[in-house]
Amino acid sequence: MTQRVVVVGGDAAGMSAAHQALRAAERTGRSLEVVALEATDVTSYSACGLPYWVGGEVPGGGAALVARTPEQHREAGIDLRLGVSATRIDPDARKVETDAGETLEYDDVVVATGSASIVPDWALVDGRLAPDVGPVKTIADGQAWLDRLGGEPRDVLVVGGGYVGIEMAEAAARRGHRVRVETRSRVMSRLEPEFSERVADGMRAAGVRVAEGTTADGLEPGTATVLALGVEPRTAMLPDSVERGPSGGLRPDPTGRVADGLWSAGDCAEVHHRVLDDWTYLPLATHANKHGRVLGDHLGSGGDSRLSFDGALGTAITRFAAGPTYLEVATTGVRADQVEGAVSLTSEGATMVGYLEESEEMAVNVVADPVSRRLLGVEIVGGRGAGKRIDAAAAVLWHGGTVDDLAWMDLSYAPPFATTWEFLQIAARRLAERL
Amino acid sequence: MTQRVVVVGGDAAGMSAAHQALRAAERTGRSLEVVALEATDVTSYSACGLPYWVGGEVPGGGAALVARTPEQHREAGIDLRLGVSATRIDPDARKVETDAGETLEYDDVVVATGSASIVPDWALVDGRLAPDVGPVKTIADGQAWLDRLGGEPRDVLVVGGGYVGIEMAEAAARRGHRVRVETRSRVMSRLEPEFSERVADGMRAAGVRVAEGTTADGLEPGTATVLALGVEPRTAMLPDSVERGPSGGLRPDPTGRVADGLWSAGDCAEVHHRVLDDWTYLPLATHANKHGRVLGDHLGSGGDSRLSFDGALGTAITRFAAGPTYLEVATTGVRADQVEGAVSLTSEGATMVGYLEESEEMAVNVVADPVSRRLLGVEIVGGRGAGKRIDAAAAVLWHGGTVDDLAWMDLSYAPPFATTWEFLQIAARRLAERL
Repeated sequence: MTQRVVVVGGDAAGMSAAHQALRAAERTGRSLEVVALEATDVTSYSACGLPYWVGGEVPGGGAALVARTPEQHREAGIDLRLGVSATRIDPDARKVETDAGETLEYDDVVVATGSASIVPDWALVDGRLAPDVGPVKTIADGQAWLDRLGGEPRDVLVVGGGYVGIEMAEAAARRGHRVRVETRSRVMSRLEPEFSERVADGMRAAGVRVAEGTTADGLEPGTATVLALGVEPRTAMLPDSVERGPSGGLRPDPTGRVADGLWSAGDCAEVHHRVLDDWTYLPLATHANKHGRVLGDHLGSGGDSRLSFDGALGTAITRFAAGPTYLEVATTGVRADQVEGAVSLTSEGATMVGYLEESEEMAVNVVADPVSRRLLGVEIVGGRGAGKRIDAAAAVLWHGGTVDDLAWMDLSYAPPFATTWEFLQIAARRLAERL
Repeated sequence: MTQRVVVVGGDAAGMSAAHQALRAAERTGRSLEVVALEATDVTSYSACGLPYWVGGEVPGGGAALVARTPEQHREAGIDLRLGVSATRIDPDARKVETDAGETLEYDDVVVATGSASIVPDWALVDGRLAPDVGPVKTIADGQAWLDRLGGEPRDVLVVGGGYVGIEMAEAAARRGHRVRVETRSRVMSRLEPEFSERVADGMRAAGVRVAEGTTADGLEPGTATVLALGVEPRTAMLPDSVERGPSGGLRPDPTGRVADGLWSAGDCAEVHHRVLDDWTYLPLATHANKHGRVLGDHLGSGGDSRLSFDGALGTAITRFAAGPTYLEVATTGVRADQVEGAVSLTSEGATMVGYLEESEEMAVNVVADPVSRRLLGVEIVGGRGAGKRIDAAAAVLWHGGTVDDLAWMDLSYAPPFATTWEFLQIAARRLAERL
């Protein structure tokens, strides 16, 4: 008997799930029909790439941000329906109602509806976004921002100092606009305050005005205004009886299962934070892809899968590169103030031996538990080559290792790549010596 | 009562040990006298930096390669004696005889004599190196190579295709010389054969002639000849009764102790390979610094130390960058042919999203045990940004993690830094799916 799967949402999590479900069904000799609903006419695109497109760094344009087109999904055997949203999902009756007036029955539904940009009231006129104001979420948003920023220098206000905020500030600054960033707390508030300050200083050196501790509360006529206030999970089509976290996100288990016949992954879901050992909302493409694939493998194989999405660490990276500033910023795990009794230390070093001209400054903050010596987090701000070092720290966190593991394990060294003692390790060693 | 320590060798391992011993003695209220013997007049220099100096990339010249000068060591309270070698160490009598005719008594001796370049007979004339022929080991060697390669294009033969061989080929090629590399087996023979071939192809594209499976066996008049045949531990000053491995290297325990009153670290010692669970000879600055520091902490504190040098993974990185070629090469752990039953897979991907122009090709080989799924090794060859990714794999190896850990853990992503699924992880996932 053919099992009918309805996937709601045609981006990273949903389409990863759809493809992997078909592969798993083939592997296990099962019959699967996959219907996928996508509200727009674009599938599987890189929202993360939008600021770089707007900044003029994507020669292929918006089309290049699409990893897989609707045609490619259909060729793989997915019944993809564009321009269709789910207005209501009834998990008991196993039915999806769409805005096309259709009701789809299913054996399993995959809620991969993603997230919606947070839009403040002041940005709306008659319930619609004011002209010159918009978020940075869809390909259409990207095109609108290219239209707004493709010409003469103008005033650009970025509301929000998170990843998207600083990436859009970078894009606008690279295009020569007069850029102002307003942020409620501080730039990159995920970071230690002193690291936020390093980023803010770098942005100011590139001519960006950074106003921290303030919130835009009205339209500024003539100013292009980027809404970078974050996102929230789209789960309103599900009944209240389905559990959500404080973020509004669903809480799927490591296989992607929320309840019988109900699955979810991606930006509409929370993930398990391995360091906090708690649910957290981390809407990132990496988790969407991974959890979607795991989900599809379980769904399509009837549970005959060894895959498991074992949570996240809060690993993230970005860059601010405009004018004289080139800064890489990366983090994994938690700040010291997020865990009772945790201690941290910031050290200043370099990306490679000082006798090579390409050597760049790098600051590393290491967080650990002073009793168990367990590593809890690392932040890095520095020049070219600094940021991706976070992955070695993330790997230690993944394994529950100690600050001593980070300090003493065998990492790579050659003069153009590191200092003889890799500085990430020196920073860990310095903290280890104080515990 | 003052404890007398004689450190034999004034480079990374020896001077790390000397400084840390003094710090540990101060911490624990002990009285320590540290005498250090250095055969040359240079201490604590970066041998790894010599090829870059020869290649014209070190604006500060040879002096910049010295991390700590004799004066700096003396200021820290070390009785440093330059131009003095130990000709004989008697561990039973606890005496060191020097080539200055002196006999030094000690409570503890640190054998940090490092390694000597392998010099074939054909390179010698009357027992001395022929003109225009030399290794790349000391600051004096570096200066000699600058003198030989600082002028008009000439014929340069590099004998040996390991790290130093390809780094010197790079340096000579960047200076416009006609470079030939001869290597007994293949270039970077530590790597999978197909990865060696990628490196050899990149060198050829930069105009370097690469002859594999051949050995230079005589002088070539008029040709500057780099001896890059590797190094061997210097331990001849110790009696045969002190255990050595097949490499000739000493076998200190994780605290650096070889026997009562006898300690060793650095290039004169073997290290424990965590993946092979066996001794191995890995003469690298990273181990020398780490093990030296651990040794000093135990020696100086009378054992009141929690530090431990818990072995190595064979992690290494280098680059070949000349002409049109820019290749980063990195490895950790073992090749599949080094472990019974191990399997491996090579995958081809990119350092970042393909829609950015800076995206570079990257090939990753992943090795695992098909039964336990334990990760055993990773190799990377690719463009800018590829190599340092090895550290995340090294961290998994350090913790004894699986290929699934590498595939699914939470690593960093943003378009200028990675593909959405970090390609190192895709490569691991592909192997994981085949196990």
